[in-house]
Amino acid sequence: MDIATLIGLLGGLAVIVGAMLLGGSISAFFNVPSIVVVFGGTLAVTIAHQKLGRTLGLVGVLKNALFDKQQPVEKLIPLIVSLAQKARKEGLVSLEGEDISDPFMARGIRLGVDGLSPELVTETLSGELQALKKRHEYGHKILRFMAATAPSMGMIGTLIGLVQMLRTLDDPSSIGPAMAVALLTTLYGAVMAFVIFNPLAEKLESRTKDEVASKSLVIAGVASILAGDNSMAIQSKLESFLAPAQREKLAKGS
Amino acid sequence: MDIATLIGLLGGLAVIVGAMLLGGSISAFFNVPSIVVVFGGTLAVTIAHQKLGRTLGLVGVLKNALFDKQQPVEKLIPLIVSLAQKARKEGLVSLEGEDISDPFMARGIRLGVDGLSPELVTETLSGELQALKKRHEYGHKILRFMAATAPSMGMIGTLIGLVQMLRTLDDPSSIGPAMAVALLTTLYGAVMAFVIFNPLAEKLESRTKDEVASKSLVIAGVASILAGDNSMAIQSKLESFLAPAQREKLAKGS
Amino acid sequence: MDIATLIGLLGGLAVIVGAMLLGGSISAFFNVPSIVVVFGGTLAVTIAHQKLGRTLGLVGVLKNALFDKQQPVEKLIPLIVSLAQKARKEGLVSLEGEDISDPFMARGIRLGVDGLSPELVTETLSGELQALKKRHEYGHKILRFMAATAPSMGMIGTLIGLVQMLRTLDDPSSIGPAMAVALLTTLYGAVMAFVIFNPLAEKLESRTKDEVASKSLVIAGVASILAGDNSMAIQSKLESFLAPAQREKLAKGS
Amino acid sequence: MDIATLIGLLGGLAVIVGAMLLGGSISAFFNVPSIVVVFGGTLAVTIAHQKLGRTLGLVGVLKNALFDKQQPVEKLIPLIVSLAQKARKEGLVSLEGEDISDPFMARGIRLGVDGLSPELVTETLSGELQALKKRHEYGHKILRFMAATAPSMGMIGTLIGLVQMLRTLDDPSSIGPAMAVALLTTLYGAVMAFVIFNPLAEKLESRTKDEVASKSLVIAGVASILAGDNSMAIQSKLESFLAPAQREKLAKGS
Amino acid sequence: MDIATLIGLLGGLAVIVGAMLLGGSISAFFNVPSIVVVFGGTLAVTIAHQKLGRTLGLVGVLKNALFDKQQPVEKLIPLIVSLAQKARKEGLVSLEGEDISDPFMARGIRLGVDGLSPELVTETLSGELQALKKRHEYGHKILRFMAATAPSMGMIGTLIGLVQMLRTLDDPSSIGPAMAVALLTTLYGAVMAFVIFNPLAEKLESRTKDEVASKSLVIAGVASILAGDNSMAIQSKLESFLAPAQREKLAKGS
Repeated sequence: MDIATLIGLLGGLAVIVGAMLLGGSISAFFNVPSIVVVFGGTLAVTIAHQKLGRTLGLVGVLKNALFDKQQPVEKLIPLIVSLAQKARKEGLVSLEGEDISDPFMARGIRLGVDGLSPELVTETLSGELQALKKRHEYGHKILRFMAATAPSMGMIGTLIGLVQMLRTLDDPSSIGPAMAVALLTTLYGAVMAFVIFNPLAEKLESRTKDEVASKSLVIAGVASILAGDNSMAIQSKLESFLAPAQREKLAKGS
Repeated sequence: MDIATLIGLLGGLAVIVGAMLLGGSISAFFNVPSIVVVFGGTLAVTIAHQKLGRTLGLVGVLKNALFDKQQPVEKLIPLIVSLAQKARKEGLVSLEGEDISDPFMARGIRLGVDGLSPELVTETLSGELQALKKRHEYGHKILRFMAATAPSMGMIGTLIGLVQMLRTLDDPSSIGPAMAVALLTTLYGAVMAFVIFNPLAEKLESRTKDEVASKSLVIAGVASILAGDNSMAIQSKLESFLAPAQREKLAKGS
Repeated sequence: MDIATLIGLLGGLAVIVGAMLLGGSISAFFNVPSIVVVFGGTLAVTIAHQKLGRTLGLVGVLKNALFDKQQPVEKLIPLIVSLAQKARKEGLVSLEGEDISDPFMARGIRLGVDGLSPELVTETLSGELQALKKRHEYGHKILRFMAATAPSMGMIGTLIGLVQMLRTLDDPSSIGPAMAVALLTTLYGAVMAFVIFNPLAEKLESRTKDEVASKSLVIAGVASILAGDNSMAIQSKLESFLAPAQREKLAKGS
Repeated sequence: MDIATLIGLLGGLAVIVGAMLLGGSISAFFNVPSIVVVFGGTLAVTIAHQKLGRTLGLVGVLKNALFDKQQPVEKLIPLIVSLAQKARKEGLVSLEGEDISDPFMARGIRLGVDGLSPELVTETLSGELQALKKRHEYGHKILRFMAATAPSMGMIGTLIGLVQMLRTLDDPSSIGPAMAVALLTTLYGAVMAFVIFNPLAEKLESRTKDEVASKSLVIAGVASILAGDNSMAIQSKLESFLAPAQREKLAKGS
Repeated sequence: MDIATLIGLLGGLAVIVGAMLLGGSISAFFNVPSIVVVFGGTLAVTIAHQKLGRTLGLVGVLKNALFDKQQPVEKLIPLIVSLAQKARKEGLVSLEGEDISDPFMARGIRLGVDGLSPELVTETLSGELQALKKRHEYGHKILRFMAATAPSMGMIGTLIGLVQMLRTLDDPSSIGPAMAVALLTTLYGAVMAFVIFNPLAEKLESRTKDEVASKSLVIAGVASILAGDNSMAIQSKLESFLAPAQREKLAKGS
């Protein structure tokens, strides 16, 4: 599912690189000092604006959010229902050998099989969900800060380049290339903000919402399994978590 | 009614094309690489920022929102009242052959004729309304994101064009045309954002509000018909959904 | 009172026209295609973004809001009190011939004289007030949308003009005038937004607040007259609607 | 205390005038038509956007807010306590001759000495406080509107100047000075907004908050004096109005 | 921990200075009048916009917020628990000689040892926390105001420089350097806002949130120690203040 983000980001960058290549060579758009000013400056200011640990945590948050396989909600319910049926028939211990595809659900079941009370399992899983939510929120805020900072650093770089160029107007032939280099930082800042940081922040926000919804459903499902609820009761209870469109998809699938 | 949106959008584009034609030929404003950068770039970033399914769903949402015939509220009430009278006189089954112009109402009536309880019919219709609302909200958010992204992609394209032009200032006669091409992406981005995406987002938001109001009235009306309510009671119950101006219009019409 | 808005708008435009005249002739600032792009474009996009009826209703809303004579609250209370005294002495019917300067109050009194119960009169007047509030809110939103759209259309027009100019740099003497024309659309858009639409939107918002306050007071007063309340009781009841400064003014006047 | 605002505003303007003088003479920055466009235009639009009375009231609001001596809260409490002690010992009438430095408190005491009940005095003072708050809020909103309008009028003036200049490019030597004049309106608008209107709006907002807090304390204090409360009770009652830091300062002072 | 802010800010400035040095000498970026306009102007306007005392307090707020050692929450709980155990075994007075690393906690314990009731100690500490929160909030608002003002003063300085340059276009060789100087103020304003004030404001906000959380925990802990609570009860009570991730870290540490 999150392949869309990777394809989108790479597609956006490909379009930009393509436009650069059309004008001849891409080397005209590659300038080490400009890269240092925009990337380095944005990084430095980002480090300054928040606890170091939270900023470093952003990498992990993004990796988890974009690469972890997340089961669609419509597949989780049949899985939970079948596990509940098995638990009722063969006892909770029979779930020990089950290969459960959702790692969050698997952890909850394992805790229950190991003898924790349903209340404690629910509390533990809820605690993990809260921590995930908080980490994602910080990640989201940091990405927004970077999206606001990168164009500013680009503007600062361009101003520096313009001042340097304007002080040495003796050689007219150097004006054009010098100004081209000065504009590069603005270009870098805009690409970083609008093609990378902003869409990632939006994605992280939307993904967090979906993940919280899905994990809340799993928590309720695991609690029901451990409590030995009737599979019909579980089904109708879990369906209240779904939007109507998802309920319909689920009905078709089963 | 929504003809206004089509006329408005086409009118806005016509005005812009007209202004382009005044300067000679429109071909000066047509540049394939610039189109690819702005359209392709905006598309790629939009795909990256949200689940693919929701982005693809935008087309359907817009089609439904702009082309579906929506009955004015003042016509729905007399329709509901007359159906209620018929149902009371000739029985609910007599509505089976009725040709009901509002498809949402028709679906509700059919479910009731098929034997579902009024409560279940209400729940089903409410579920459909919630799903519609959510789809529209996502559509609205995506359009706003595109309206914010298109000018950014236009600026990136112009910066790329300027850098390319500035590096090859040898031939003065090429400066003008090169800069003209560089500005095209900014122009495309502005037209996309201000003439297309922004008004569509506003329209979708306002249309959603109207549609939710109208469908809520239909749900209440269908429930009353199925419950066999008195037509006078239905009328006064449904009128509480109306703004005073609409109530007056209804009074004049009947 | 609302003469201030007319004087302010005309004054603002006069200052701008004066500045144009200082540079020679005003004809330099008059360009039909530019006018069509900005005015036509803003109009088209405004039509697209909202139900046609609401956009057309804006004219009426503005006319009512800016030209209708609105009685100051401090004059309404003595009027209501004197009507109440007359009604108590000579009976409600004696108000039939009264020439009541506030048309909203007059309508309420007439309904009461015609025999409607105070509750029904209150409900009818409240309904009219709600409808007025809603119309004004739509008017306000549409004006804000136009204030945001006009500069965008101006920018689009300027970009079109710049591209046309840059493609034909052969004749250096034409650069200046061509660029002057290109800038006109930006100028038109800025004047429309900042001198006309924005102040009108602010005025409409502030006027709506004042009118709702004044009409709420009239509704309470008419209800008291019809209920035959004691004039002292009416006075103190209505004064609770006033800000302290208004109460003082009223005390001085009486 | 509010000397800071005057020093700050004058300091800001001095810095700007100093920078102008560095470039030779300040006369280059003085242009009557430009002043008329920005100052006149902003004034006209401000008059248009709100009831005339409220806009004219802004001058009084600013004068009161910036020049009225406001007693620090830490000095008001000992004053109230000592007045309460005197009133309990020598009777309320003994306060008649007191020279009370805070005019708001003095008015309240005088009303009480004149025989009004504590409830009526409280109501009267609260009414005055509400009126002050409302006047300040309008003042604040109007200043924000002016801060947003001035740069817009500056931009309009610059566009007019640019168009005039561009139409008469025949004399190259006149380009520079004409453009310099065109830029003056943007400069005026920026100075008005960022050096004058914006800081004044912030100051008025912060001052209003402080004044409401201080006057609320006076109202409670006057009510206690008139009710003949014990001075210890008054002290502890009033201290609950203070922030902890102020309470400490008060403790040190006494 | 807050070393990150210093490193980030210095790193950001180093990157910018490095970019300046690349163009030859840094002296081209050093201009006393420009510094006076932007720094002095921002300072003057900041002084004008808020009570002088609060603006001067900003320095202390920043020093405390960035340099004070703040104990991580996970270390505070074991400390509180061990103090509670000692107090229960050897009596509250035995804490007198303890060297408590957290000064806020130490002050609370000392007050308790000196005989204040737990309620009074809690009230005193809460009062200090409220005062700290308020000071930080003002500091945060002032930094945001400065971040908004600095670029405006930079723009004003650049406009002044441009007007001066444009009036003396006689010597073409002076245009470049004059424009370079004019741009310096914009550069200064951008660096001040985006590299210094904005990240500091964000940091202060985030630091305030962390500090309030940590001090709230200390207040609850000190109250429990003084009340002679059981150490197990204290532990589980304080853990409810922690996020799940912190709870886990604490579990590992003990």
